[in-house]
Amino acid sequence: MKILISKKTGLFYTYKEDGDFHCKEGTLSESELKSEKSLILSNMNKEFLVFNANNYDLRQKIKRGPQIILPKDLGYIISRTGITKESKILEAGGGSGAATIFFSQIAKYVHTYEIVEEHYKLILKNLKLMQIENAKINFGDLTQFIETENKNEFDLLFLDMPQPITILEKNLDCLKSGSYIVCYLPSISQIEEISEFILKHENYFYLEEISEIILRHWKVKGKISRPEHRKEIDHTAFLIFIRKI
Amino acid sequence: MKILISKKTGLFYTYKEDGDFHCKEGTLSESELKSEKSLILSNMNKEFLVFNANNYDLRQKIKRGPQIILPKDLGYIISRTGITKESKILEAGGGSGAATIFFSQIAKYVHTYEIVEEHYKLILKNLKLMQIENAKINFGDLTQFIETENKNEFDLLFLDMPQPITILEKNLDCLKSGSYIVCYLPSISQIEEISEFILKHENYFYLEEISEIILRHWKVKGKISRPEHRKEIDHTAFLIFIRKI
Amino acid sequence: MKILISKKTGLFYTYKEDGDFHCKEGTLSESELKSEKSLILSNMNKEFLVFNANNYDLRQKIKRGPQIILPKDLGYIISRTGITKESKILEAGGGSGAATIFFSQIAKYVHTYEIVEEHYKLILKNLKLMQIENAKINFGDLTQFIETENKNEFDLLFLDMPQPITILEKNLDCLKSGSYIVCYLPSISQIEEISEFILKHENYFYLEEISEIILRHWKVKGKISRPEHRKEIDHTAFLIFIRKI
Amino acid sequence: MKILISKKTGLFYTYKEDGDFHCKEGTLSESELKSEKSLILSNMNKEFLVFNANNYDLRQKIKRGPQIILPKDLGYIISRTGITKESKILEAGGGSGAATIFFSQIAKYVHTYEIVEEHYKLILKNLKLMQIENAKINFGDLTQFIETENKNEFDLLFLDMPQPITILEKNLDCLKSGSYIVCYLPSISQIEEISEFILKHENYFYLEEISEIILRHWKVKGKISRPEHRKEIDHTAFLIFIRKI
Repeated sequence: MKILISKKTGLFYTYKEDGDFHCKEGTLSESELKSEKSLILSNMNKEFLVFNANNYDLRQKIKRGPQIILPKDLGYIISRTGITKESKILEAGGGSGAATIFFSQIAKYVHTYEIVEEHYKLILKNLKLMQIENAKINFGDLTQFIETENKNEFDLLFLDMPQPITILEKNLDCLKSGSYIVCYLPSISQIEEISEFILKHENYFYLEEISEIILRHWKVKGKISRPEHRKEIDHTAFLIFIRKI
Repeated sequence: MKILISKKTGLFYTYKEDGDFHCKEGTLSESELKSEKSLILSNMNKEFLVFNANNYDLRQKIKRGPQIILPKDLGYIISRTGITKESKILEAGGGSGAATIFFSQIAKYVHTYEIVEEHYKLILKNLKLMQIENAKINFGDLTQFIETENKNEFDLLFLDMPQPITILEKNLDCLKSGSYIVCYLPSISQIEEISEFILKHENYFYLEEISEIILRHWKVKGKISRPEHRKEIDHTAFLIFIRKI
Repeated sequence: MKILISKKTGLFYTYKEDGDFHCKEGTLSESELKSEKSLILSNMNKEFLVFNANNYDLRQKIKRGPQIILPKDLGYIISRTGITKESKILEAGGGSGAATIFFSQIAKYVHTYEIVEEHYKLILKNLKLMQIENAKINFGDLTQFIETENKNEFDLLFLDMPQPITILEKNLDCLKSGSYIVCYLPSISQIEEISEFILKHENYFYLEEISEIILRHWKVKGKISRPEHRKEIDHTAFLIFIRKI
Repeated sequence: MKILISKKTGLFYTYKEDGDFHCKEGTLSESELKSEKSLILSNMNKEFLVFNANNYDLRQKIKRGPQIILPKDLGYIISRTGITKESKILEAGGGSGAATIFFSQIAKYVHTYEIVEEHYKLILKNLKLMQIENAKINFGDLTQFIETENKNEFDLLFLDMPQPITILEKNLDCLKSGSYIVCYLPSISQIEEISEFILKHENYFYLEEISEIILRHWKVKGKISRPEHRKEIDHTAFLIFIRKI
């Protein structure tokens, strides 16, 4: 798969290497697209960059149902919890699979539970598209299955669901001692509830950090250098990092 | 290696599994430390959590010379450039090795160039401590060696150095077409210089994004829920994401 | 003048006390609008709040040509420079008159210079609408007239113009010793130019602060409490606070 | 009163025009201090700026007991509520008097209630120092006295107290219809409580805005231009803007 970027507008497209490519800025010929060139012209004389799509490009282009988790949050989850290619991740609330795909491409393997059938199918489709083979997607409710997972297996439990406390109430033997439970929650009032729950169960959980990641885009060109208008990224969610004792 | 966290103060220590452990909050006995328990008491009756150290814990404890790059920035570099366990990374300006260690634990392998001898030795030491084997550290100036690296090898060139333009002026055949060059620069005036350079060399580089990552810590406990005082993380650096054409 | 706020949609309108009022959410009758009630129903059964318009309401409703300066920036200029009802303000680059109106309603008087005829007329119109009588609006270029203003008169010189250095190069005897010169500049590169200028003229100017004001809106309702989507205010400008020596 | 600023260190002092001035950077002679010069040398050859103190300078130097409200928040309260020199302000929780002094210097007059005797005395002292004559300071609890204030008098009720709901439960006839009630609250959980209260009393109050003001300082000098280290201002408080119906 290739990625085509219009130099002028910054719009980008995926190209499945199947014939000429048509868009508003003209037609790109198959022969040029399959050549070694990385800068080609459309028949409307617009410049296009042609790259082999990398994983960032592809992840931006997966089919989307529910809102996806953004790179700013995914990256911090990985770096803050010490995930490496040896890590094993358990996840609930897969959505479109953006997090599942990201985690799978970095960690050893990922087990995901998704309760909505439509989303479950979407994740399977997107994983196939991305050729991910180390993610096991389960159609069902993690609260019912978490106690059946192997003991001491996972390094990270990632919960993208409105009521993560229902999971915290279960036997979490499948998590290693000292491993992380990370919840992704849009509202600080949800964090307040979890914080209260942990205070009452402090022999089982250690609340290590509550934070939010803010991404600020800048425009720097010629005499202009300022935060970019209309591109400040909206608030997405608060992250809570809990360690299992 | 284990990590010991004082439940009351939040201070954390590494424990090399070599006898009793002593600190201001008392002594922890070797027999307890080596047991299966994850919550033990010091002889001063203070509670301590005992976990197998994960990579986040260990990375916080490496010996530090120059200022290290923080998880907020490292995570976004990984997620924004599409790095996976198949990726190959070239890096200049290793500092203490924090970025090198982080990249090595995720990517296939990392080549690092460090020009300051003292830092070079520090990185070697820290890599050994972290048991990293897929990072090749070179003592020298990347500007002199980049043209000797294999063609089409790397997916990411990460530059943590004050004058990255000296690298951009070289033949960058060792980078794949469409791969990323990411510069980490404290001052927006440095970004302005690079932006101007790219404008003049726009057949070789595509400027995809300039951004900064802001991390906001929250305190949520009982009736309190507010951004944490004295823990807003200072500005670290601006990130510029350039693609090689 | 009254202000009408739809309780459901939050939309607000000015009402000139001239007959019935019509909008998408129905008609409000003159008799109700002129009664003492502050909560009335339209003929479509929608609730409307009826208030005597305050100055914030009115300032939001002035006719707009160029982009207006927002309350977040205006308020900080006032509080950071110590402006009171005894202060005298000189201003260039009036735009729609938003700053002029705000300053006039707080300070003793304001002298404004506006170089664009269309804007000059707009400011006059808006001042009349707001019944401001202590602002003197001059059609012309402040660089040509600043040396004709009275000596030691002003406490604040506010410059909302792309090249404020042309003013700083003039004889600024009309400003009191220790008074503030505040420039409102969208781009940090403009700040860099001024900073360099001041470094070269440090016997005349003391650079006290460079800052930006970020306004974050929150939505707090029922179980939701989070930063508001699509309402984070874009970057407007950097502010530089210079004192005349 | 004059203000003395060390050009090198940026430290600033007030000078009561009473003899020579001594500090770590040397002695400044009375004759020079009382001359027309605004740039003088100490006997240690350090440059000092000498200005007539403006209100910003003086407000920074008042005696402080409880934490004062910062200019970033005070300015926005004024600009967001449409306060002018015709406005009348009622205030509870005066602290050191920073808000009282600021409001008094802009508005027609201010009535303040302070419940802690020590703070009450401090406010009186600071008002005298600042020569404020249009502020009436009451020693007592506003919840007990608010119903005795004149009807339809105030344009703004400012509450800097932990439990503002106790005031909202009173008869607020002393506030004009459409006037603002602004609460200054460090914790979002306090805002959640008020929001819930207003939802239940929506025939009396209209919740117009919840926001926070973030001030970011920049360092721009020579080749450096970046957000300033160790000067990002901590979170102070959330502001809630309510209109009385």
